Parts: sequence; structure tokens; C-alpha cells
Amino acid sequence: MKKVGIADTTFARYDMGAAAIDELKKNASVKIERYTVPGIKDLPVASKKLIEERGCEIVMALGMPGAAEIDKQCAHEASLGIIAVQLLTSTHIIEVFVHEDEIEVGVEEDIETGVEAEAGSPKALAWLADRRAREHAQNVIKMLFKPDAIDREAGTGKREGFEDAGPLI
Amino acid sequence: MKKVGIADTTFARYDMGAAAIDELKKNASVKIERYTVPGIKDLPVASKKLIEERGCEIVMALGMPGAAEIDKQCAHEASLGIIAVQLLTSTHIIEVFVHEDEIEVGVEEDIETGVEAEAGSPKALAWLADRRAREHAQNVIKMLFKPDAIDREAGTGKREGFEDAGPLI
Amino acid sequence: MKKVGIADTTFARYDMGAAAIDELKKNASVKIERYTVPGIKDLPVASKKLIEERGCEIVMALGMPGAAEIDKQCAHEASLGIIAVQLLTSTHIIEVFVHEDEIEVGVEEDIETGVEAEAGSPKALAWLADRRAREHAQNVIKMLFKPDAIDREAGTGKREGFEDAGPLI
Amino acid sequence: MKKVGIADTTFARYDMGAAAIDELKKNASVKIERYTVPGIKDLPVASKKLIEERGCEIVMALGMPGAAEIDKQCAHEASLGIIAVQLLTSTHIIEVFVHEDEIEVGVEEDIETGVEAEAGSPKALAWLADRRAREHAQNVIKMLFKPDAIDREAGTGKREGFEDAGPLI
Amino acid sequence: MKKVGIADTTFARYDMGAAAIDELKKNASVKIERYTVPGIKDLPVASKKLIEERGCEIVMALGMPGAAEIDKQCAHEASLGIIAVQLLTSTHIIEVFVHEDEIEVGVEEDIETGVEAEAGSPKALAWLADRRAREHAQNVIKMLFKPDAIDREAGTGKREGFEDAGPLI
Repeated sequence: MKKVGIADTTFARYDMGAAAIDELKKNASVKIERYTVPGIKDLPVASKKLIEERGCEIVMALGMPGAAEIDKQCAHEASLGIIAVQLLTSTHIIEVFVHEDEIEVGVEEDIETGVEAEAGSPKALAWLADRRAREHAQNVIKMLFKPDAIDREAGTGKREGFEDAGPLI
Repeated sequence: MKKVGIADTTFARYDMGAAAIDELKKNASVKIERYTVPGIKDLPVASKKLIEERGCEIVMALGMPGAAEIDKQCAHEASLGIIAVQLLTSTHIIEVFVHEDEIEVGVEEDIETGVEAEAGSPKALAWLADRRAREHAQNVIKMLFKPDAIDREAGTGKREGFEDAGPLI
Repeated sequence: MKKVGIADTTFARYDMGAAAIDELKKNASVKIERYTVPGIKDLPVASKKLIEERGCEIVMALGMPGAAEIDKQCAHEASLGIIAVQLLTSTHIIEVFVHEDEIEVGVEEDIETGVEAEAGSPKALAWLADRRAREHAQNVIKMLFKPDAIDREAGTGKREGFEDAGPLI
Repeated sequence: MKKVGIADTTFARYDMGAAAIDELKKNASVKIERYTVPGIKDLPVASKKLIEERGCEIVMALGMPGAAEIDKQCAHEASLGIIAVQLLTSTHIIEVFVHEDEIEVGVEEDIETGVEAEAGSPKALAWLADRRAREHAQNVIKMLFKPDAIDREAGTGKREGFEDAGPLI
Repeated sequence: MKKVGIADTTFARYDMGAAAIDELKKNASVKIERYTVPGIKDLPVASKKLIEERGCEIVMALGMPGAAEIDKQCAHEASLGIIAVQLLTSTHIIEVFVHEDEIEVGVEEDIETGVEAEAGSPKALAWLADRRAREHAQNVIKMLFKPDAIDREAGTGKREGFEDAGPLI
């Protein structure tokens, strides 16, 4: 059975790891390895360990960077580290970051999910974190089991969390 | 037959991969390996796999970063990763990125192609994405088959997508 | 006995290394290797030496970047280096940085600790440096000895130094 | 005979590669390997190939980044890649970049060279590109053949292209 | 006898390398290897060569980045390269950069040294470059010969060039 690594943080204010695991378990037959670390800058080496020491074929690295300038810099550093691990291991790591100031989500988004939450409210942010984690879990399933399905979506303006942007023309 | 890798994304809002493949097939005898991933930050490891696991001699990495600050940072991270893969594999990866806010293109550009599209409109952006993918596909063909042709263009102000800037004097 | 590396600087204006060591010694049975360098940009190679030459299983890298733009750039460079060392050694390095302009801490924070200090005052900054070093020392202990404990805190909005943000909902 | 690699781009609007080669040939007995690529982000791997596959002992990487924000980011990425290649090969690569918005050059500069060109004009930029390429070619010759000559210039405020700044005191 | 590498530039407007060497020779019995390059971006590979090809146990990399935005970017790239070399060689490189716009130094600083120079004047900048090079040379001596001495200064707010900031409390 294929093994999926879940690297997440205690800093995040929503249990995105649990959402990802729930979505993976519901839709595929995979083994889960979970590894929680303090912050997003600890995710690169945690992901590397999931791949090299625990045999994961793919990893989801989930985190919630804060809104301050320094938090954005941390996210940048973490992202570069996550890319480096992918190159060192030739293995995909799907980065699932929700920024605390992604505040556009709100009542306009509620049609599909029934969520009613003011843009930027904690409830709206939790909704976004949950949905982005789940939609990226779906990406992981496609990458592991249905590469043709993802190939058919090339250039179609997919988004994770928010609604798809769709193709330009 | 030489193999060209095409790494592209589901995030992009235009099927730049298809445009590149069409241009390559029309103008050269090459084998294509296509690999679609969710976003541009997944392109570096996808490109590495195309080179190391699927035997590509050159790769085109195509994507359409969004207009927000965070999207520009993602593009920066992806670009650094793409350069790193080139150094790890000693293989060229031609990055073909179209930024959603490259809005200068418009009706003034239509003489050569017959496209009539307001600057910044979805139609103009699609036109730019198509043309840049195709012109970089032409670069790939030159790099694979006609290195002398590209040497002769050194310092001549070539641009991909928009019109050439031309030499200074 | 497990060995914890403490890399710190003469640039810092508070002895965060001593605070971390005190907290580690009080709460766990570990051996300490300390390595002091001039500035934060010297921390990456110091951490690498603690891991490779002195056998540390985990390292704390402590520093206090200044408030100027150039100091923030130094911190960014140091952080990237610290991530690189983690990937080269497959070993965690817990970065504990306190920025001189983290001035929000102040009298509002004093309930738990009894500290009364105006926001941004040297006393408040020292308090923050001490507390962040100690709380990250607690993280180190969990990572070494109680991985289940840290897993249970996933997505709960933990913070080191300042009060926890807590979960969104 | 020592081999000097010349990596340059079709994007540049002046044939800096030709200027560098002319200066090298006039002043030293070296063999030239030239490698032209589309843009500056293709220079790192081109430089690596010049060193590893074509036996160059030193490389000049010449380019003309545009004036837009994204061009500056590309230049930054290219520079990091060029440094990485140097570290991977333990070989010097002299980066010769002229930014399209280096507009300070102008009529005030014409005394030495006789060039009369308004600051920021295409003619002035071409003059700058030519002169910087040639002065860096002189650096390459010193590095290859007269290391003592360059040692004697330590801390003397040399500039390439524009006039030397000279020592502070 | 231990060997110290001195990597410096012709771009710098003060002979910081000579100042560092003078301070090292006066205070310790070391062998010096000097390596001058055109600019700060050439310092990483020069430092690597000093370590790997000339047997230096520690290197000082000295430079004077200019005041423009592009100069700060060059300094950032050089710093990242210098950190990379340290990690590749497990060897310390003490970066000694003086930025041309570090203008705060001036008459207020003259008590200790007797220098009277208006803040931002060439004389003040030369004074700063000299003093920073010397104080970092002292750090190098401590790191080579008296590691206990530097450990005792942990967290005490040392500065090189300007006056020490001192401990917070």
C-alpha cells in the first residue's frame, strides 16, 4: 500500500493535517505517516525524514503562516526548503499553506458549501484551511493513482481552497 | 529521436503545454514527454523526473503565476528550483512563465497576428501565453538542432511573446 | 544520553543560550554542547559542526537580529543556511530568533509571568528572549522524548514567547 | 592554451559577447568557447557546460536584464545560479550584467572615450555594455595570467563600465 | 602554523584586507593567504579555493557593497554564497562587509579612537572599514585559539566597527 506523509505544525490554528488525512482515507487506500513540528521552517527536514526514513512516496506539507512581514519571509524560506527536499529525493511534496491574511474568503463563497462567514473571520479562515487541505489531498490521490486525470486538467485554471479561476478563453 | 519534456500546471489558465507541443511537432521530429502538476512550485521536481526518469534531453517548464504578491514569490521560488535542477542534471530547462498582470499586450500588437484584444483582457493574455510558448518551443528546436542559429542571434534583443526589442544601435 | 547542541552569538543582547540550557537541564536528562559565534550568519556552519563533529542529535540556533533592513536580510540568509544544514544532515535545528523590533510585548503580557515592562523596552525584549528560548527548549524535549505530545498539539496555534494564538474555531 | 568560456544571451540588446571576445583576443593568447542562450536564467547551466563539457578555466556570463521588477528578480535568480555553478565547479565565472535602467551614464562620461550620448539613451547604454564587457575581460586576463596585478588593486575602488570610484582616503 | 585566508575585492574603496592582515599578524602567529577578486560576488568561490586549494582553516571575506538597490542585492547573493561555502567545507568564513550607506558613524564616535569625521564622510567610512576588519580579525583569533573567550561573550551585545550595544539588562 502506498504511503503518504503528512507534515504539519503546532503553529497552525486549524488541524489541516487531520482534514488532509480524512480526505485521503475517504477516497483512497493509502497508509499515513504523520509528523508534527513546531513551525513551517521545520517542515523541510520533517518532509525529508518522512520520505527517507519512513518510506513515504509523496508528502503533504501543511502550514498557516501569519500575517506579519517576518511570517511571509518564514514562508518563503520554508518553501525554498521544501523545493530543495523534492530535488534531493526526486519526490513530490505538495505544499499546502494558508496565509492568515488571505481574507478575501467570505459570504460570497458560501453557495457551494453552505458556510456563512464574514471575509477574514476565524470561521472563514478555518473553512479555507479545511478546503485547501482536502483539495490538495485530492491532487495527491490523482498524482499517485490517476496521472491521466491531472494531465487532462492542464491549463484549466484550477485553484485549491477558493473557487477555480477556470480557463482564460 | 530526441525527447523533449513538457512540464505544466493545472493552475495555468491557458493550455501552454499543448501550444508548445503543437509548435514542436510542426517544426521538428521529437518525442514528447508531458507531465502535469498542480502549481508552478511542483515544476522543479517534475522537470527533474522528466530528465532523470524519462530521459528528456531538454525540458520546457510552463506556468502562469497570478498577480498577487504571494504569486510572485511562488514564481521566484519555482524559478530558483528550476535553475537548481538544471545544475543538478547539466540539462537546459526553458522556463516559460506568463504573469497574469503582464497586461501591456493589446490592440497595438495585433498587426502581425491579427489578434484584436484589449490590453489585459483574458483574450490578450491567452494570445500572449500561446505565442510565448510557441516562440520558446522555437528556441528549444534551435538549441537541440541548430546551435549556430542561436549563436547568430546573440545580443540582438530577442523577446518571446511580445515583439523583439531589437539591438540598441 | 542524548546530546543537544546550543549555537548562539556574541551579537545577541541577552544570553538566550543560557536560558535554553537551564530549561533543558531542569526538564530532561541531556548532554549539552555549546558553540558561540560572532553573528547569526555564523550559526549555520556552527550548527553543522555541532551535528557532525560533536554528535548532537538536535540543535538550537539562537540569535537576536537587529531592527535595520540589513539585519533582516542577515536573518533571512541565516535562516536559509539553517534549513540547508538540516537537509544536509537530516537533523532538526530549532531556530530561536528574537528580532529587536518585536516591540509588541509589554505590560499586557505580565499576567502570567509577573513581568511589568513597557512594550519595546529592553526589559520586555529580555523577557521575550528568555521565554522564547525556554519554550523552544520545551519543544526540543518533546521532539526528542515525547513525539506523541507534539503530535497532539498539531493545528492548535502554539506560539513561542508570546501567548499562544490558539485554534481558529 | 587556456580556454575562456563566453556565455551570453539573445535577449541582450548589445553583443557584449563579441566585445569581450575582441578584448580578450587583443590582449592575451586564449582559446574562446562561446555559448549563446535565450535569457539570463539560462546562463548558469550554460556556464556549467562550458566548464565541465568544454574545458573552460574561467567563464564570462554576459547579460542585459530589463528595467521591470520581474527582470530584476530574474537577474537575482541568475546571479544565485551563477554563484552556485562556481561553487560546484570551483571555477570563477565573471558575471557581466548591464541593467537597462542604468541610465546615469551620459555626456559627462565622454571625456575619456569621446562618446557623446545622452544619459539613458540607447547609445549610452551600448557604450556602457561595451566598456563593461571589455573591462571585465581585462579582469579575466589578470585573474588568469597576472594574479599579482589584481592583488595590488585590492581596496582601490575599481569599477567596470563607469569610472573608478577610487579609494576613500 | 594555522593558515588564515583573506578574500577581498578591487571594488572596495578601503584596503580592508591589509587592515585585517595587520591585526592578525600583530596579535597571533598565523600564516596568511590573500586572494583578491573584482567584486563581492566573486568572494564565495575565492573563499572556497582558499580553503580547499590553499589549506586555510578559516577565511575572512571582506567587501564594501555600494549604496544602490542593486548593490544590496549583490551583497545578499554574496552572503548566501559565503554561507554555502561554509556548509560545503564545514569551515568558518567571517564575512566583513561595510555598506557605503552605513553613515551613522561620525564625530560622536571619536572619543575612543580620536577620529574626527562627519557622519557619512569618506573619512568616517574608512575608519569604520578599518575598525570592523580589525575587530573581526580579533574574532578570528578567538575562534582559532581561544574558543572559551568567545563563549564567555555569548549574548553580550558585541558589535564590530561601531560601539558594542551591550546586554539588554
